Amino acid sequence: MHVENDADTSSKAARPPGRPAIGPRIGIIGGGQLARMIAIAAQPLGNDIVVLERTPHYPASAVATQALVGDWNSLAPLQDLAARVDLVTLENEFVDAGLLAELEKAGHTVLPSARTLGLVQDKLIQKQTLQAAGLPVPQLLDTPDLKTLGAAAQAFGFPFLLKARRNGYDGKGNVTVRAASELEGAWQKLGGDRGNALFAEAWCPFVRELAVIITRGRRGESAVYPVVETVQRDHICHIVRAPATGAPEVLARAGDVANRAVAAVGAVGSFGVELFQLADGSIVVNELAPRVHNSGHYTIEGCVCSQFENHVRAVLGLPLGSPRLIAPAVMVNLIGTAKAAGHPQGLERALAVPGAHVHLYGKAVSAAGRKMGHVTAVADTLAAAEETAVRAANHIVFGGPA
Amino acid sequence: MHVENDADTSSKAARPPGRPAIGPRIGIIGGGQLARMIAIAAQPLGNDIVVLERTPHYPASAVATQALVGDWNSLAPLQDLAARVDLVTLENEFVDAGLLAELEKAGHTVLPSARTLGLVQDKLIQKQTLQAAGLPVPQLLDTPDLKTLGAAAQAFGFPFLLKARRNGYDGKGNVTVRAASELEGAWQKLGGDRGNALFAEAWCPFVRELAVIITRGRRGESAVYPVVETVQRDHICHIVRAPATGAPEVLARAGDVANRAVAAVGAVGSFGVELFQLADGSIVVNELAPRVHNSGHYTIEGCVCSQFENHVRAVLGLPLGSPRLIAPAVMVNLIGTAKAAGHPQGLERALAVPGAHVHLYGKAVSAAGRKMGHVTAVADTLAAAEETAVRAANHIVFGGPA
Repeated sequence: MHVENDADTSSKAARPPGRPAIGPRIGIIGGGQLARMIAIAAQPLGNDIVVLERTPHYPASAVATQALVGDWNSLAPLQDLAARVDLVTLENEFVDAGLLAELEKAGHTVLPSARTLGLVQDKLIQKQTLQAAGLPVPQLLDTPDLKTLGAAAQAFGFPFLLKARRNGYDGKGNVTVRAASELEGAWQKLGGDRGNALFAEAWCPFVRELAVIITRGRRGESAVYPVVETVQRDHICHIVRAPATGAPEVLARAGDVANRAVAAVGAVGSFGVELFQLADGSIVVNELAPRVHNSGHYTIEGCVCSQFENHVRAVLGLPLGSPRLIAPAVMVNLIGTAKAAGHPQGLERALAVPGAHVHLYGKAVSAAGRKMGHVTAVADTLAAAEETAVRAANHIVFGGPA
Repeated sequence: MHVENDADTSSKAARPPGRPAIGPRIGIIGGGQLARMIAIAAQPLGNDIVVLERTPHYPASAVATQALVGDWNSLAPLQDLAARVDLVTLENEFVDAGLLAELEKAGHTVLPSARTLGLVQDKLIQKQTLQAAGLPVPQLLDTPDLKTLGAAAQAFGFPFLLKARRNGYDGKGNVTVRAASELEGAWQKLGGDRGNALFAEAWCPFVRELAVIITRGRRGESAVYPVVETVQRDHICHIVRAPATGAPEVLARAGDVANRAVAAVGAVGSFGVELFQLADGSIVVNELAPRVHNSGHYTIEGCVCSQFENHVRAVLGLPLGSPRLIAPAVMVNLIGTAKAAGHPQGLERALAVPGAHVHLYGKAVSAAGRKMGHVTAVADTLAAAEETAVRAANHIVFGGPA
């Protein structure tokens, strides 16, 4: 691995110039937009940020105090990261929990912990853990082979979902199986025949998708953010409305379920909880993300303390900030449509929309389905916020020459 | 000079690894807390920031894409900075305007311009310029020698102010002359006998100090922030209350005077305008700062678009954001009291105060009178905001071992 950014090399690290650590140093595994926004939120608190990502010039590298390049799924680069900082956190759930356990054995602080990540990153174990805690999840069946897959189809009927136990995101790693004839194709598509561990999940007839950010502190205290409504497009978060409308008791139930789900895995830090609301108003946990979450980007402008600052506070053992919503807020994702430049066209027109807050992630190249940025608007009404955010977002096009 | 941070060396620069410029690159002359907060505000817009400061490990170096170390008051380091970026801006008024003119001659974009800085950085020229524009300023007299100083004393009576024409800040460079017997001592204290250019200013019997941030765009458009009341302690900004209370016509006059003052010097970017309010409600310009200003730190949480983001928008020629105050806001500076560690004690207690936003500047060492950070609170009333901000600020002590 190499040090892409040696601006402020930790005193623990080999090479000068050494910047004296002023506040605690936070190491982040993964350098995408989530790490970038954690770093930006950590700066006002006086923290230096060291980030580790596989390839150079990643979104967080332009803002981190120190940007490392190395494979975060092998031990040596993780050990090097840990040696430079006071604690290690993460921006994605894909790093192997066993490697994090090695860091903990060596005396490093890792938050969320290796145990928590182990309970969350395998989606079958995650949902079994939530089920065991008495939380509502869809019906599940482990499908180690085609035979058990057939049994799952029998049990659930069609359609049902076949899912990879690990490394899925934005719909990747999920297949909807609509007929017996599709079983073998779905199995192969998700690599069941190549040894990928898969499981089956009963179809959940939800009426809408909700999400809640929970920041859980080291002492088990938690900040419960407003319940929001999320709208997906092509399995990617498209728009987030904060707060979600609807019956207060349903929203209260959603917040309570999310809070208990995060506690059930011993979380420390900001976690995103994706929920299904059923026709009868009941709530089912769709998925837990052991990290800051796209459904919480609105909190930067929309809440007193953002999910990012609260994540930093939580892992540092500092008091949590208020998750109170300042006013109705709507966030719209900026998704790449094709391979193009990472800096968009139309930024000027978007910034001319009063009240639009534009966030670009500094990715070198855009691609179809790639999250390139987002726009948030805060207004007196949800409708006004959505009108502003959508209007600004529609001006932004990642269509320049790549 | 050397590159402290080569994370993302510009393609124009010599040494790899080269990060492809994604958005425009902004160079900042000076690396203190103002550069740090400009950099933090520029990040969400996808801009890379390159900062130049004289000594390593400065507040902005931990957050800049590239941190350069070199003397910004000599041409070569400024040329090196300019060569790495798309435009150059500044965080202090002390860089020599003649050097900026050299950069402009070489074809670089410098905003605010060399001409503007030349009109502002010499406080006598600044006030003569404002006077010529029909704006209210205190009575002034140039005092090239002790003889003219005596004449100024005759004209103004005692007390009056003797000021250095350049490089003064936080009361440094000002002396109140209370009697004829103090004339020579004041002259020597400010280096009149060592060739420092000084001028005399009549005493202004103000009843309170006001300030306004104006962001002026490249096309002369401007965002006028709320008029705020500032309270100084030992000549250093101690507390800022937004909005200032008082008669609407007085506040309207203050905003108008500030807006015209910034236009009079051809400003581009966020400028701070310090004002005196006299007993009859009239307004006098105390001083213009050609940069983001301490009296505008409250805008980070208090306004729709902060003075820092609007500065970035202005110098990039992007539409200005709304300066609207979201709710009453109060900012309290965190001032060092003695030589001590740069990271404070009591941060945990301060963050436990609901609604307190703590900003630390990441200075390695604190010193008496040194600005180490600030706290902002936004609330339904000014009184509630002040109570929160003061309570949180009082918990923070820079008393650790240096």
